[in-house]
Formats: sequence, structure tokens, C-alpha cells
Amino acid sequence: MNVEVLAVGTELLLGQIVNGNAAEIGDRLASSGLDHYRQTVVGDNVERITAAIREATGRADALIITGGIGPTQDDLTREALCAAAGVSMEFSEEYADHLRVWWERRGREMPASNLRQAEHPAGATLIANAKGTAPGLRLRIGGCWVFALPGVPQEMLPMVDEHVLPHLVAEAGGGGVIVSRLLRTWGESESRIAEIVGDLYEGHTNPTLAFLASGGEIKLRITARAGDAAAAEALIAPLESEIRRRLGRLVFGAGDDTIERIVLRLCAERGWSVATAESATGGLVAAALTAVPGSSAVVRGGVVAYHPDVKTGTLGVSPETVARFGLVSAETALEMAEGARRVLGADVAVAVTGSAGPDTLEQPAGTMVIAVATPEGSRVRVSRWPGDRERVRVYTTTAALHLLRLGITGEWWSG
Amino acid sequence: MNVEVLAVGTELLLGQIVNGNAAEIGDRLASSGLDHYRQTVVGDNVERITAAIREATGRADALIITGGIGPTQDDLTREALCAAAGVSMEFSEEYADHLRVWWERRGREMPASNLRQAEHPAGATLIANAKGTAPGLRLRIGGCWVFALPGVPQEMLPMVDEHVLPHLVAEAGGGGVIVSRLLRTWGESESRIAEIVGDLYEGHTNPTLAFLASGGEIKLRITARAGDAAAAEALIAPLESEIRRRLGRLVFGAGDDTIERIVLRLCAERGWSVATAESATGGLVAAALTAVPGSSAVVRGGVVAYHPDVKTGTLGVSPETVARFGLVSAETALEMAEGARRVLGADVAVAVTGSAGPDTLEQPAGTMVIAVATPEGSRVRVSRWPGDRERVRVYTTTAALHLLRLGITGEWWSG
Repeated sequence: MNVEVLAVGTELLLGQIVNGNAAEIGDRLASSGLDHYRQTVVGDNVERITAAIREATGRADALIITGGIGPTQDDLTREALCAAAGVSMEFSEEYADHLRVWWERRGREMPASNLRQAEHPAGATLIANAKGTAPGLRLRIGGCWVFALPGVPQEMLPMVDEHVLPHLVAEAGGGGVIVSRLLRTWGESESRIAEIVGDLYEGHTNPTLAFLASGGEIKLRITARAGDAAAAEALIAPLESEIRRRLGRLVFGAGDDTIERIVLRLCAERGWSVATAESATGGLVAAALTAVPGSSAVVRGGVVAYHPDVKTGTLGVSPETVARFGLVSAETALEMAEGARRVLGADVAVAVTGSAGPDTLEQPAGTMVIAVATPEGSRVRVSRWPGDRERVRVYTTTAALHLLRLGITGEWWSG
Repeated sequence: MNVEVLAVGTELLLGQIVNGNAAEIGDRLASSGLDHYRQTVVGDNVERITAAIREATGRADALIITGGIGPTQDDLTREALCAAAGVSMEFSEEYADHLRVWWERRGREMPASNLRQAEHPAGATLIANAKGTAPGLRLRIGGCWVFALPGVPQEMLPMVDEHVLPHLVAEAGGGGVIVSRLLRTWGESESRIAEIVGDLYEGHTNPTLAFLASGGEIKLRITARAGDAAAAEALIAPLESEIRRRLGRLVFGAGDDTIERIVLRLCAERGWSVATAESATGGLVAAALTAVPGSSAVVRGGVVAYHPDVKTGTLGVSPETVARFGLVSAETALEMAEGARRVLGADVAVAVTGSAGPDTLEQPAGTMVIAVATPEGSRVRVSRWPGDRERVRVYTTTAALHLLRLGITGEWWSG
């Protein structure tokens, strides 16, 4: 089953947005054991979309199109599908009613243009969109399955997972199953991790091992293909054991166990509540923790102490400490963490102070101090991060969550 | 001059990296007034690279290829160029000497595989690589100029800027420039905006109008092509005026003026400092404001008041207010905003309380209350947002920043 991806959108050609959709779909096709040899991008032009559809449907067994199915006049994928398939446009009264109800429920009047989303090429099946109003489309052009999905990733990806992949895997004749295991690491670079486990994947095709770097963490994905899930698991198990043996405590979690979820669970297990005190990260640590549903059972809250007065006032950091050691210092960070515990009534707290750049604050840009305080003690780490302001803030947020984890479990860290 | 981009690399198809190169090149082609209608990605397979080169050179006036010209066995772009052009591979003794010197200067022995980089299709011109060892290639296939460049952006982009674009612009005979204007709106849906201005772009090709939705804002991009920048601006001006006239106060900014930057500038102009009090958004509003370099001149800080005790304790919301009206109420939100002003010593504050879902807190999931308090008064808005927890949090963060803007300028809002 050879699948191509076609992204539609002039904004992609103009470089206003990056084609992250193709990467997300490519990742899923690989995990599902489907072949994927080509990705294409064309702009909002009906002739060029039509040509791209004709070419891809002549080459591939399936084509996933993203974008161009919204309500506006520059959404032209539906028209191009009609042209490529040689069919007329039809109108779904049923979907039009669905759209009217969707808007009514939100107490708003539906713009008439939205009815474009009830149009579809004759013979197409509508795919439900749980997160928006544009339905996906599935139709057959020649010998090729064609799926037209929204360009908005939050709407598109669930449709890929819940509709497109199951359909294609079934069509591929149930050629066995693909099972993946994601191992999450923190504390070493991608190249260092690759060195440690490199010999385990070079030249291997089943299972395969892939690396993904994001926000300071390195994820390893083991993927195996076999006749059934048990056989695939049996292929994964020895490789996973060996990777875990070599990487040791660098592996902090697996699967959907993100660092935020792990921190919240570790707190819940101990009956501890958690709080944050943030300067340079400006609320990102609190936002990460509170992004998890149910976090309110554990998270007390946080103080974003951006101005020095908020550090000394709201958090109660001693002005003498600030005067003597500076705002970006281990001493100030420790008092911020203790202050967050006291002021917010939490059992454990993490504090971040630093200089995210480009302007410098006492210390060179990228200097970050993270402190953790628990009922059992406290510890601080000073780091220096390369990169721009955004990168420094994101990497520091990840590091703060990991040091919080090590503080809660009592593993602490050296230096 | 119609230019296509072909990115070569299996890691792109697997989704291990995103095709940022195509976006960077697309942006530069638009700025240089060169047409760009298609981008393609293929993996490290000589037949598929060859096929993609043949197709593109049959369609376009120029093709820019990224990737596949390094030293390893899976770098196959050179072989594919020979096949597509019908020429043999030659070896440049001169470049081989250059490579030997490059390695010698670094005190390292050159791996023998590096000599692959001295190979090139017969008739190709080598393009110097100031940042690495793989030279770029320029050759003509049929009526099409072909450029093969490294996949590493830091090596590739200088070669685009210094060699490819000047060559193509000269070939195009000074084919004019492209100028874009981005207008930012908030407060209406994409389909409603499209209705209001739809007749201004239907069938128009210069200038063109495109829509981009992100996080609750709708952006409109006007793009014009002309002989020079002034002529392009003259095409944009009347369309921009008409759009601004019709959309009125829905347009809040242009270009790089994000809502965060506008809020910070409005505060700075008034000499006001700003603070946040967040429950459901958990720090996202503070994180957005502090993401802007230089925000420390205006931002005092924030309180993430997740637990009810933090609302009544740290922020000083009256327990009677909470008992009588509830945590998700206009009254509580207003006291949170006033509390943030007082506790954090800020002139203006925005407060968010609500239920992001999936669990409900007094009110249905998606109910959000935003309050703004300034030295000149205060106001509150209750909204109901569709979607999942992440979407509700992001849209509410955008709304909080916009209501903060309206509060600061005294435009306030009704209801």
C-alpha cells in the first residue's frame, strides 16, 4: 500500500507556515507499515491542485490531501477533486443541517458561506470532523483511495488516526500489525544517545529504531511489524531491554507518560501538592502542568515573579539575598521555591530564575537557575543554554519539570 | 520564471524532521518575485529522485534540489542528476584537492568517502559551500536550470541567497518584486470575515487575498506583484483601505504586531505595568506576554491561582464572593483582577477563571470568564468555547490578551 501526501495552500509555498502536517502524517504512515514515497505541495489554484491529484492517483494506491476544504473561496480542493475524478459537485442536505445545529448550539448565526462545506464530489463519503465544521472526504479515483482532510492539524490528525489509517491498513490486506514503543529520555544529546545505542539499529529493518528530539527530550521509537501484536511485542522486547540497560536512568518514561503526567502522578502518590515560582519561563512550567486534565487535584498554583519586587514581595525572597547574590543565583532560586511552598501552601515547589535573552540580566543570556524544594530537602542547578529566547524558555521548562521529578523521588542530582 | 523545490531525504518522509528548507526557499522566491507553484519531497532512492527531477524539469523553468549531496552512500542526488540529464559522472581533481586542504586545516584525516563530493554530472558548475564540504551544483536539463544544494539549512541558505537567487533573477530579466501585507483580526470567524470581504478577492490575481486562522485570530494576507516595491505597494494600498473600512475594529494590527506586542506597547505608552491572574489558562497568558523580548519593562508578574485557596489567599478574593457566586463567575474574576493589581503592584491586570474541561467545575466545560481591571475601571466577559481542553485554553488566552487591549485603550466591550 503506497500512500502519497498532497498539501494544499499558498501559505505553504510562500513559506508562511511549515508543512508540519506532512511530517505528522509521514510519521503515522511509517508506524502503520504503509509505504510512503512522495509528498507534494501546491497552492490554492484549482488547475494545479487537479494536476497534482491526477499525477498522484496515477502513481499511488492512496492519496491523503490536507487543506483547501474550508468555507472560503480560496478553498478549492473539492472543485479539484470533481475535475480529477470527472464527477459533479453534490450538496448534502444532511450535513447542511448538521452545520446549522453546530452553529445554533453555540448561539451564533451561521454565515452562508459555511454551506460550501456541505458540498462534495459525487460518490464521496463524508468523514466526521470532531473538532471543526469541515467534513473530510473519501472517494476513489481510478485505482486510488483519496482522502481530503482539513489543513488545521488539530482537526486533521484525529481523522487520520480514527478513519484514514484503519481504512488503509484494512485495505492493505491486514498485512500483519505494526506495534511501536516510545521510550522517553532526558539528560543527553541526540548524538550521544545515538552513539550509545547506534549498533542496535544500523542495518536493522524489523524492528526499527528512530530518534525524535523535542524541547530538550530525546525520544526513541522501536517499531516492529509482525503477524499479530504478540509477535510484534516479542520482537520489541529484547531490543527495549537492551536499550533500557544501556541508557539506564536517562529513560524516564514510555508511551504517553509525559514528564508533566509523571510529575503529577508522583505527587498524587505521595499526597503532595505542587506549586511553581517562575521568572524567565514566565508561566510555561505552570501552563505545562495545568495542561493535563485532572491536574487541579495536585497543582496549587504558581507565581510568575517577573519584576524583582514580586520576588521579594509576593514570594518573600529576602532583599539581602538578592542584593548579595543577585536575581539570577542559586540562593535567590532556593528562596523562590521555599516562598512558593509557603505562600501557595504547597508541599513541593520548583523555581526558575534566569536570563532568557536577548537582553542580559546580571548573567549571560541563556543562564538559568532551577531550584526544587520538597518536605525532604531542596536542591538547585545552574545551567547555560544555547539558542534564542524561545528555545531557552522551552528547554528550561523541560529541565524544571525533570528536576522537579528527581526532587520528588528523592533521586536529586549532583551539581 | 517558475521555480520548483525538490527536497530529498527519507527522514522527511518518515516525519523525523519537518521540511523547513522548502518554507525558507519559498519565502525567498516570493520576496524575489519568482513564481513558485510546487514543492516535492522524495526519499533516498535513485529511481524516485530521478523521476521527480524529470517531472519538475519538464514543468518548470528552474528546480532547486535540497539534500542528497553529502558523502554517504545514501546521498544519491548526483547519480539521479546524471540519469535525468543523460550524462556521465565526472570527477573534479581540483575539488578533491580543496577537500583535502579543508580537512588538513582542521588537523583531521579525510574519510575516503568524502571524495564522493568531488563527483558531479558532466557539464555541471560547482557552487562554493562556505559552511561545509559538499559543493552545490548547477546544470541545465532541457530548458530548466537545476541547482542541487546541501540539506543542512546553514549551508544551503547562503548558497540560495548568494548564488541561486541572483542567477534566477538575472535570468528572469529583473522580473519585479512581491510585496505582502498581513492584517490581523480578532472577534469574528473565518467564514464571517470571508463573507464581509469575499467580493474583494474572488477572481483577483494581483493583488491576491488569503486567510490564515490561528488560535482564535484570523489573519488576512494581501500579496501584490509589480516591477518594483513602490508599484506593488500602490496595488496593495486601495485593497488594504477597503478591507480596513469594512472590517473596522476587527483589524487590530498589521505585520509583526502580534497581540502580545501591542498590549505591551499600549502599556508602555501609558507608563502602566501589567499583571495576570489565571486559573483555567494556568499561566499561558503570562507566558505569552513574557515571550516578547523586553517585556520585563512592563510585566510585573502573575499568579496562577489554580486551587480555590490561592484565589482567596494569595489574590485576596473574598470567600463570601466565591460562596455566593462561585469560582467561575464574573464577580470572582473581577476580584481576581483587582487582587492581581494590588498584590503584584500593577496598574492593569487580566484575570481568567473557567472550566477548560473535560471535567466540569460548577459551569459546563468551555465556560470562561475574563476580567480586566485598569486605573480607569473594570469589565468582565463570560464566554463559552467549543473544543477540547487545549483548544479552549489557547482560544481563551488569545481572548484574554484582546480584552486586555480593549481595557487599556478604554474601548471596553459590551456584554
